[in-house]
Amino acid sequence: MTKNKTTRRRFLRASTAVAGLVAGGFVPGPGQSLGQIPEKVPANPAQDPRAYGSRSSHEKALRNWAEGGGPSTFSPLHDQTGVITPSSLHYVFTRGITPPDINPNDHQLMIHGMVERPLVFSMEELKRLPSVSRIHFIECVANTAPTRDRWKWGTAQMRFGKSSCSEWTGVLLSTLLKEAGVKKGAAWLLAESADRVRHAMNITLEKAMDDALLAYGQNGEAIRPDQGYPLRLLAPGWEGVRNVKWLRRLQVGDQPFLTQIELGTNASLRADGKARWFNTEMGPKSVITNPSGEQQMRAKGFYEINGLAWSGLGTIRRVEISVDGGRNWQDAQLQQPLLPKAHTRFRLPWKWTGQQAVLQSRCTDDLNVRQPSLSEFAQTWGVTADYFQKTTNSVIHFNAIQPWRVNTDGSVANALWDA
Amino acid sequence: MTKNKTTRRRFLRASTAVAGLVAGGFVPGPGQSLGQIPEKVPANPAQDPRAYGSRSSHEKALRNWAEGGGPSTFSPLHDQTGVITPSSLHYVFTRGITPPDINPNDHQLMIHGMVERPLVFSMEELKRLPSVSRIHFIECVANTAPTRDRWKWGTAQMRFGKSSCSEWTGVLLSTLLKEAGVKKGAAWLLAESADRVRHAMNITLEKAMDDALLAYGQNGEAIRPDQGYPLRLLAPGWEGVRNVKWLRRLQVGDQPFLTQIELGTNASLRADGKARWFNTEMGPKSVITNPSGEQQMRAKGFYEINGLAWSGLGTIRRVEISVDGGRNWQDAQLQQPLLPKAHTRFRLPWKWTGQQAVLQSRCTDDLNVRQPSLSEFAQTWGVTADYFQKTTNSVIHFNAIQPWRVNTDGSVANALWDA
Repeated sequence: MTKNKTTRRRFLRASTAVAGLVAGGFVPGPGQSLGQIPEKVPANPAQDPRAYGSRSSHEKALRNWAEGGGPSTFSPLHDQTGVITPSSLHYVFTRGITPPDINPNDHQLMIHGMVERPLVFSMEELKRLPSVSRIHFIECVANTAPTRDRWKWGTAQMRFGKSSCSEWTGVLLSTLLKEAGVKKGAAWLLAESADRVRHAMNITLEKAMDDALLAYGQNGEAIRPDQGYPLRLLAPGWEGVRNVKWLRRLQVGDQPFLTQIELGTNASLRADGKARWFNTEMGPKSVITNPSGEQQMRAKGFYEINGLAWSGLGTIRRVEISVDGGRNWQDAQLQQPLLPKAHTRFRLPWKWTGQQAVLQSRCTDDLNVRQPSLSEFAQTWGVTADYFQKTTNSVIHFNAIQPWRVNTDGSVANALWDA
Repeated sequence: MTKNKTTRRRFLRASTAVAGLVAGGFVPGPGQSLGQIPEKVPANPAQDPRAYGSRSSHEKALRNWAEGGGPSTFSPLHDQTGVITPSSLHYVFTRGITPPDINPNDHQLMIHGMVERPLVFSMEELKRLPSVSRIHFIECVANTAPTRDRWKWGTAQMRFGKSSCSEWTGVLLSTLLKEAGVKKGAAWLLAESADRVRHAMNITLEKAMDDALLAYGQNGEAIRPDQGYPLRLLAPGWEGVRNVKWLRRLQVGDQPFLTQIELGTNASLRADGKARWFNTEMGPKSVITNPSGEQQMRAKGFYEINGLAWSGLGTIRRVEISVDGGRNWQDAQLQQPLLPKAHTRFRLPWKWTGQQAVLQSRCTDDLNVRQPSLSEFAQTWGVTADYFQKTTNSVIHFNAIQPWRVNTDGSVANALWDA
């Protein structure tokens, strides 16, 4: 790894500039994906299931959305297996827009501001550069927020479904910034979208040089339109809103850029009337997805409790499960390999006796940060738990433990507000 | 891990039999995926891209097939990013059938033969059992076989595209066999498909108790129909043909079952007229996917050479690349984490000078088995290399190093037969 890293840096330094480095390039030959094959091709390949397959008509897992939610959707976590979210079911949050239809041949990325060499890249140029692939979650900053009417929502999908996990492929942002030459004093980057509202958010230069990625691949194919096709910023573990989709521009500056969303809806307005700006990492969070709210147990007996845990701070090291309302906790099994800033599947065998049971999971990451209970979370806001059912303020970064109550009739309900 | 393993085993032993263990179960409530959500749902969710997304219309990656290939298809490896194969682009090999349309509510799995307790499971029962998720490749035993007219095929897709890699989720076969109670003297299992040709193949009891899986999940959702929906056997690292799709029956015996395909087309008929039966693991193999055959380099300059390596024997530990026809080799960077029996992405920066260049990759796994050159492979068959262009015999398990020749005009060609 070290040796290769060195090789790569020399490779870039050896060039005079990226513009020279990526001039020309290899591109698919005429009709590469089909024309190159001397064998039979379908008349209309895009509609031939042999050429691009689809799921069984018996499968019903779908994204869902709240009334008036625009193009934003929740992922059906209770239907998901493993840790990869199918790209077709990845949650979507957009600022009221439908995904733009971008032709990648026309798309460009500009890097400017406090850099020695402003640069513009075509998609073809970006794809010739050294690349990496990494499995990371993205979570909407408002996921699990209980405010307004949301505190009544009863399913894992509506409570936790704005977090998804993919294998992302692209170019490290640090690779491009080294080519551009960041000027002394630079500390922040503005990332701007090509969508019609020109969504724009900040990340720090430190994050940009650490693990931020310009992603063009998702789960083995091109990134999906609703995830930013053909290019999105990936700031692993940071608020979803900062993972700017349809990325067209990166501006380097010495202080954060004061965008409307940064200071408005994305600020945490606290009970005391003060707002916290420039939140970044998503804290540790977990949810039992099976059994979960509004599912129905048909009989007592053995079940596997399973679910997902993640932390924007690092790697999940432990998930504990209680089946008795929090009196006793036992360690769940964690799916290997454990990956940083990724969904982590946990599992625990359980026998339901037919009595009422309250199921909860709590996770701890490798910085030893543990997911809080609702009352612990409320304390950090200086409020009592019922505040979150009443306020119309924005409550982002909510990550309290989620209890599901299994009733004696086998119905399962959201028990967050039971205490 | 150890603690949980113990817990799981006790969990199973505590039950009188699996049939009792899984009686009843939790199932989705009425219209769970939609009805459970008290919010707006689309009139026809299956056709609403908000509910189940699709790729950009600008993306053209497609599976392809040879004339007369029936429903069997090759995956476009040169279009793939990372290590996960999109389920829609996973290669397919079937024995001339289109995937059956199975209603999972009607599907059952039977385990019988040399067991104490023959068992029958519904899909719902299987899904209540302890599960695992693992990233593994599946490769058709005939992938990269150069026989008949195949030796002329020039693209990475047609040469190597019958290998794909997914995150699979399901029940360890060992879990079920422990419940069934394998009788003394048992050594083999027959796995049989529910398709109309009743495809059936053998695996050893040792493999069944090691890492074989009954998979119902693929890349986060239900396994695709062309991969065996609702249930397939996964025998990681073993010939694809043994990973029986649409799995309906497992029979335990004391010797291998003499199926037609086992002794016919799946036997390696050697140059000396003898056949090798009961092949199992796929050996180490790698291919540079970019640049690769029938792509076109547009200009000299910097490129990232990248591709995929895998071994059915274990974990890829090293991939070396030569850009000068095999005189010099340098280590490629391997995408982390390194996983057993999984596609492994490798990458190396390269500067094309405009001269002819022959690019090759060779991989080594953690058993220290290295991918052979064509002449080394031919020696193991007791033949010279040109044998593989002439024979109509079945040449399976072909894993010779693949050279691509970059011509001075930037065209890239299959150079396997150049020497």
